[in-house]
Amino acid sequence: MRSASGPQPEPPACCNRTGSPRGPGAVTSLHPSAPAPDAIALDALTAFGRFAASRGWVPATAGNFSVRLDADHAVVTRSGIDKGNVGAGDVAVVPLAGPIPAGMSAETPLHLARYRAGAHVGAVVHVHTLAATVLSRADEARGAVRFAGFEMQKALAGVATHESVVELPIFANDQDTVALAERIEARLAGGANVPGYLLAGHGLYAWGATMSDARRHLEGLEFLLACTLEERRLAR
Amino acid sequence: MRSASGPQPEPPACCNRTGSPRGPGAVTSLHPSAPAPDAIALDALTAFGRFAASRGWVPATAGNFSVRLDADHAVVTRSGIDKGNVGAGDVAVVPLAGPIPAGMSAETPLHLARYRAGAHVGAVVHVHTLAATVLSRADEARGAVRFAGFEMQKALAGVATHESVVELPIFANDQDTVALAERIEARLAGGANVPGYLLAGHGLYAWGATMSDARRHLEGLEFLLACTLEERRLAR
Amino acid sequence: MRSASGPQPEPPACCNRTGSPRGPGAVTSLHPSAPAPDAIALDALTAFGRFAASRGWVPATAGNFSVRLDADHAVVTRSGIDKGNVGAGDVAVVPLAGPIPAGMSAETPLHLARYRAGAHVGAVVHVHTLAATVLSRADEARGAVRFAGFEMQKALAGVATHESVVELPIFANDQDTVALAERIEARLAGGANVPGYLLAGHGLYAWGATMSDARRHLEGLEFLLACTLEERRLAR
Amino acid sequence: MRSASGPQPEPPACCNRTGSPRGPGAVTSLHPSAPAPDAIALDALTAFGRFAASRGWVPATAGNFSVRLDADHAVVTRSGIDKGNVGAGDVAVVPLAGPIPAGMSAETPLHLARYRAGAHVGAVVHVHTLAATVLSRADEARGAVRFAGFEMQKALAGVATHESVVELPIFANDQDTVALAERIEARLAGGANVPGYLLAGHGLYAWGATMSDARRHLEGLEFLLACTLEERRLAR
Repeated sequence: MRSASGPQPEPPACCNRTGSPRGPGAVTSLHPSAPAPDAIALDALTAFGRFAASRGWVPATAGNFSVRLDADHAVVTRSGIDKGNVGAGDVAVVPLAGPIPAGMSAETPLHLARYRAGAHVGAVVHVHTLAATVLSRADEARGAVRFAGFEMQKALAGVATHESVVELPIFANDQDTVALAERIEARLAGGANVPGYLLAGHGLYAWGATMSDARRHLEGLEFLLACTLEERRLAR
Repeated sequence: MRSASGPQPEPPACCNRTGSPRGPGAVTSLHPSAPAPDAIALDALTAFGRFAASRGWVPATAGNFSVRLDADHAVVTRSGIDKGNVGAGDVAVVPLAGPIPAGMSAETPLHLARYRAGAHVGAVVHVHTLAATVLSRADEARGAVRFAGFEMQKALAGVATHESVVELPIFANDQDTVALAERIEARLAGGANVPGYLLAGHGLYAWGATMSDARRHLEGLEFLLACTLEERRLAR
Repeated sequence: MRSASGPQPEPPACCNRTGSPRGPGAVTSLHPSAPAPDAIALDALTAFGRFAASRGWVPATAGNFSVRLDADHAVVTRSGIDKGNVGAGDVAVVPLAGPIPAGMSAETPLHLARYRAGAHVGAVVHVHTLAATVLSRADEARGAVRFAGFEMQKALAGVATHESVVELPIFANDQDTVALAERIEARLAGGANVPGYLLAGHGLYAWGATMSDARRHLEGLEFLLACTLEERRLAR
Repeated sequence: MRSASGPQPEPPACCNRTGSPRGPGAVTSLHPSAPAPDAIALDALTAFGRFAASRGWVPATAGNFSVRLDADHAVVTRSGIDKGNVGAGDVAVVPLAGPIPAGMSAETPLHLARYRAGAHVGAVVHVHTLAATVLSRADEARGAVRFAGFEMQKALAGVATHESVVELPIFANDQDTVALAERIEARLAGGANVPGYLLAGHGLYAWGATMSDARRHLEGLEFLLACTLEERRLAR
């Protein structure tokens, strides 16, 4: 959840607010080849962070969130910041193809890989919840947590009835997040149609066409995980 | 919790704020045959939604709430909106006999059927809580969750002592909510006197003469469910 | 938690703000023989209620709180009100020897009996928590919940070390609260030195010389109950 | 959590705001040999307390927090105050070598000993959480709670991968906190490199170079404890 570099009181050199306007919105460039994060993107990240912190889902500066800026860039939260209080200095524009600026979370490659998978991914959120962490470890060997018969499954895009089965993929955690992203994308490309996954012992990722969709998917998956954890306790 | 139509940034055509004053309060008509939701009704829905969201009972835009407007109409929250932040554009007046405007939750028929059951129903609330979801699945075959000996049973209208037995009905979930409403009303008409029910794997409904009564019933039932779930854990 | 009379939008006749100044503080009389609740008493009740509601300890208008006004009177919350939002119209001055005004909680006799036990009781609070409710039923036959080895035991007046044993009494619930108060006071007079008790299936009472002390005792006992409930789960 | 002296409405004599400016910041002296707590230190304590109270981690006035002021002094919260609302009168400057002013928590020696261990300790926080209390009792005989395979282990300074093992030490509780501090420091000096420890039946301590680091360590350890407690429930 923290990169080795820890909190960043000053924006790294890559992100000084210099450069020329570019792109359809004529926004100010932060990165030699990137437009500036606009106010809408920052607001979306700030609001989601405030919500996640109120739920206790981003303890110890954990978690990271991003929104797509255009076909080639996303705005991503920096490493080591208080995710409940995201300000303009706490995010950076990152090219989807890299390179990743200094001061970003080690998990930034997981976000970028999701955006590269297609224009249907407009926001990616990652949090650390108790149910996600515990079930991701309990079911790691099975490779997925399975939900069936919950109305809440309909919170996921494309699910129209509780009479469905949802398989939330679990991936082994790996500090080499570039290699991890490749394994994740290979499996997702192979047919998984759930807008989220678990990293074992780590937490929950979810995405959507918009930040609202990503948040709805995350809340829905977390509720399904919490109910499932409770059912496991009763069933033992 | 979401209808197939998802979030509704624009009010559907049925609800443009046009039409002539009508009825005792001379309110502005929204629907050809409906008075406008008045400020009191909207305030009640907004306040309940804020409370429910603070408790985490409306995750992923789940849940829906309504209040009776007059003998023939109710004001109901729309589908896909953030239930913690209900504004004037997030509710619609619905005739109790239908038709249901576009953009409403698939569960609107469950609300309308409750109002048609009698003038004693003045507000209906539905939320998704962990205890309600888990116990509704655990006890679905029994058809009810049974409470006895709790002082909190007195939160329910007509219960004067903890020395009573309360049976909260459970119904199988069904995406055909018109048929589901018929089954529910048939059973409730047959003598159930608890102001709430569970849908299996789905959540908790409660109602009352006023929104205050409906909320008290909902909070009381949720507390009874949470205590019962805890007792099941200890008793296993 | 609710008396039969339910919410009280209007103060009952006993409590019109009329009468003559009396007593050391020359406050305005509400009851023929009672001084008015002063601003300090109301503030204490409002602040405690806000705190209790934020913790979810007063669901469904449950719970009631009081503070001593003088040697012969206490200010007590009325029945059926939202305990998270206690205003001037939501409390009444009650003579410790009775009679109890209309609109008060059925549990008012439990409060009055505590004040009559001695001047060391300056505030009494009662809430409904999950741990208190579940453990009061689980241990009802034993007559007490026992705590040993917790540093939190020092939150209770007179306890100086974790190397003590605290026995929190449990009483069978009874809708005849006058008779119940007699049984409680008889047992407390017989030597119990813990500033609280449980009513089986009902909830937790605590008191202290001041509202701060009563709240500290309540919070400490609730923490001890929550830890004990968790240890029971692990030990089964 | 409370010293024998209880709440302190008046600052003790040691802390009257008199004396001459001294030290690099020319702050006002409170204690004959101590600079005044500056605004930054007070803000850090107030903000941490507000956060801890919002999480329910400082029930019944429990918990205490401190920040280093200079090489020889720390600012420490007083005993018996509401930790969610720490004001200027609720803290005192304490020399690391003593003596400890009146009105301080009995646990102040544990804070001072940590600061004396080295300049890398800039803030110390102590809270009472359910998971910390229960696991500190369950694992007291083992002398530590062990974490392995959690990404959250990276919240701790010096941990770069989830493929590590973290051992959080547990010490038997002792009302003689001077003797307790000696035992703790002896063990920590012997090689423990985790920025926190548990007191059995009592709670969690954590520290860091800054208050932000101490808070991150505390939140990370609490999350690891909560996940571990949940895994124990499932594994029984």
